[in-house]
Amino acid sequence: MKKVRLNVFSLLEKVRSRKPVIHHLTNWVTIYDCANVVKVFGASPVMAHAPEEAAQMSAISSALVLNIGTLTKDLVTAMMIAAKSANQKGIPVILDACGAGATALRTDSCLDLINNRRIDIIKGNASEIACLAGEKVMTKGVDSSEVGSDLKKIASKLALKRKCTVVITGKEDIVNNGHKSYIIRNGHPMMDKIVGTGCMAASVIGTFAAVEKDLSFAAASGLVCFEIAAELAVKKALGPGTFKEKIYDCIYNLDEKTLNGMQKVYQ
Amino acid sequence: MKKVRLNVFSLLEKVRSRKPVIHHLTNWVTIYDCANVVKVFGASPVMAHAPEEAAQMSAISSALVLNIGTLTKDLVTAMMIAAKSANQKGIPVILDACGAGATALRTDSCLDLINNRRIDIIKGNASEIACLAGEKVMTKGVDSSEVGSDLKKIASKLALKRKCTVVITGKEDIVNNGHKSYIIRNGHPMMDKIVGTGCMAASVIGTFAAVEKDLSFAAASGLVCFEIAAELAVKKALGPGTFKEKIYDCIYNLDEKTLNGMQKVYQ
Amino acid sequence: MKKVRLNVFSLLEKVRSRKPVIHHLTNWVTIYDCANVVKVFGASPVMAHAPEEAAQMSAISSALVLNIGTLTKDLVTAMMIAAKSANQKGIPVILDACGAGATALRTDSCLDLINNRRIDIIKGNASEIACLAGEKVMTKGVDSSEVGSDLKKIASKLALKRKCTVVITGKEDIVNNGHKSYIIRNGHPMMDKIVGTGCMAASVIGTFAAVEKDLSFAAASGLVCFEIAAELAVKKALGPGTFKEKIYDCIYNLDEKTLNGMQKVYQ
Repeated sequence: MKKVRLNVFSLLEKVRSRKPVIHHLTNWVTIYDCANVVKVFGASPVMAHAPEEAAQMSAISSALVLNIGTLTKDLVTAMMIAAKSANQKGIPVILDACGAGATALRTDSCLDLINNRRIDIIKGNASEIACLAGEKVMTKGVDSSEVGSDLKKIASKLALKRKCTVVITGKEDIVNNGHKSYIIRNGHPMMDKIVGTGCMAASVIGTFAAVEKDLSFAAASGLVCFEIAAELAVKKALGPGTFKEKIYDCIYNLDEKTLNGMQKVYQ
Repeated sequence: MKKVRLNVFSLLEKVRSRKPVIHHLTNWVTIYDCANVVKVFGASPVMAHAPEEAAQMSAISSALVLNIGTLTKDLVTAMMIAAKSANQKGIPVILDACGAGATALRTDSCLDLINNRRIDIIKGNASEIACLAGEKVMTKGVDSSEVGSDLKKIASKLALKRKCTVVITGKEDIVNNGHKSYIIRNGHPMMDKIVGTGCMAASVIGTFAAVEKDLSFAAASGLVCFEIAAELAVKKALGPGTFKEKIYDCIYNLDEKTLNGMQKVYQ
Repeated sequence: MKKVRLNVFSLLEKVRSRKPVIHHLTNWVTIYDCANVVKVFGASPVMAHAPEEAAQMSAISSALVLNIGTLTKDLVTAMMIAAKSANQKGIPVILDACGAGATALRTDSCLDLINNRRIDIIKGNASEIACLAGEKVMTKGVDSSEVGSDLKKIASKLALKRKCTVVITGKEDIVNNGHKSYIIRNGHPMMDKIVGTGCMAASVIGTFAAVEKDLSFAAASGLVCFEIAAELAVKKALGPGTFKEKIYDCIYNLDEKTLNGMQKVYQ
């Protein structure tokens, strides 16, 4: 692997100037944080889960983020409607496979979405992605488990099979579209000490995917920005509570020099 | 227009001493912030959206706030029930027309509520209010768009037609009941950098409407308090994350001198 | 009453090392805070309210927390399913009777749960517990009312009748299993100035109940930790907004010396 330099600031500037609308059907735990992280990056979040309006909202959006964190059958139905509309319009669809593998409903709902709609980016932690790739894992609630197999290979295989970009978040993040791969070594263990950073990462990826057709580059850039902000926030925090608030400050104040100097991306 | 001095502290004191119960049927994105802003102002928020209890909760409340930010058909049905009970009791009903104009479901649900229940205060940004007033606008998700027409006239026309108070939030806020009008020039652009300030404003208006029969005065006073707190919070913040937390501190610590000295209300 | 010293740190260490999964079916207002407080204590929150997965999620959890703060009939059905699974597995079930007495739906749903499932810990404020114990009270929304009767007797009577542990939160917290009783005098009035501390307390109790079979000891220890953190947070806060964030920092940084030195537990 060699270190590469991504021009992530160019994408951040596009987000800030175009202010794309990012539609979400997401969970009730972190819905505020998903909306707020999109807003603080400079884009415009919208959350509309009624089946009667999900398609119309997708049609005025630039990306669609689906997160199954507190799914119900009705919500999955609305996700299907929203994703169909997104597919017709040609905007990227991001699936956060939150808790896949923990229950049959979660695994089956993810597979239904992947099998019946075009999902452009599948994002999860190691155990969630391994589950969707058909690898055997033990999942403990919505938190990640160790996965024995080679994560990069799992990501690549799933990406090729589903013709999509796969993102595995963890100590190292893997972004893989089957043909090229980024490894991101930014971020901080404090991100695992609070609820919501995983969901927020998916919303950030959606935000960057709204302004860049190369979805691997978009996903990697979004993660780099988010995780550098987290590194900066930790330095100003006394614990997970202040960390949570400082991360928004740090995202808002991200600049080119910081992003170029702090990024740790490998290929 | 001439500058006027509102005795907003007299209403704030009533809120703090009477601790009115403010019932909400609201969205899942900002539901915590709506509840918390009411609480920090000294009142008592309650959120009950089950059709089986919505009427009973309205009947023990002093104001009802309806917000369609993540509406479903079922939620609108519950809003109808809650509003009917509120109308029977004679407590003020505030409608935050969050995203009206963005989808048919949002626009139609607002109109259903306005046509079939007594809505005492209709609140929205320029594009939302213009939509409900029958003016042509382009809405971009739930964030405001520019409206070509004269906003004050739109507010006045809608207020007269619906026999209610209309609040248009923006750089300048307009409060108009068809007969008198307040313009509020408090607040700070940072309020638009985070999710939730619009919804919180509606909850604050509801809180003040619970203690004052002159609903224009109540709405203007609530906005003045909230936006002065925001101005104070910006000074203590390093970005949108710390701003969000400081705004609660500043609301909690509002005093008469500050409210008299900083208010910018015109008539 | 005499002051006693609980080894609460031993339980905190178990939470941190075992990282138990705490399943919630809770309300949409404070769902984030319930999840985050569990996480910051070192455990692993999960929220799954779909009837199709509620049982399966209980089966991989170490405690189940039910909170009726924004209940619907469907949610209560899912609670019944989740609690049945929890009962079969033998993990503790905690019921936060949020707003019991305010509406018939809330009171009846609590009683349905208590009558038909094994509820190990019933938690509420004075008016909520009095309502479930069959005492006459006036409830003002979800906030507590004064209760004329002797609270300790009510707690004991309800605990004996329902063969469970009863927790009444307030200026003094009462933990009573019918045979032994703890009074906790930690905490700070600032906890009542924000939304969510009551719900978070129930989640904390669930977290400690997941690692300790003596549920009164577990509940008392959880409250002591949470409330000492609140006392520490107040000292670092300028108001309810910063208090809210600092409480997470203070929970995360709790150590043995602090817990031993600051606890105020009586028997």
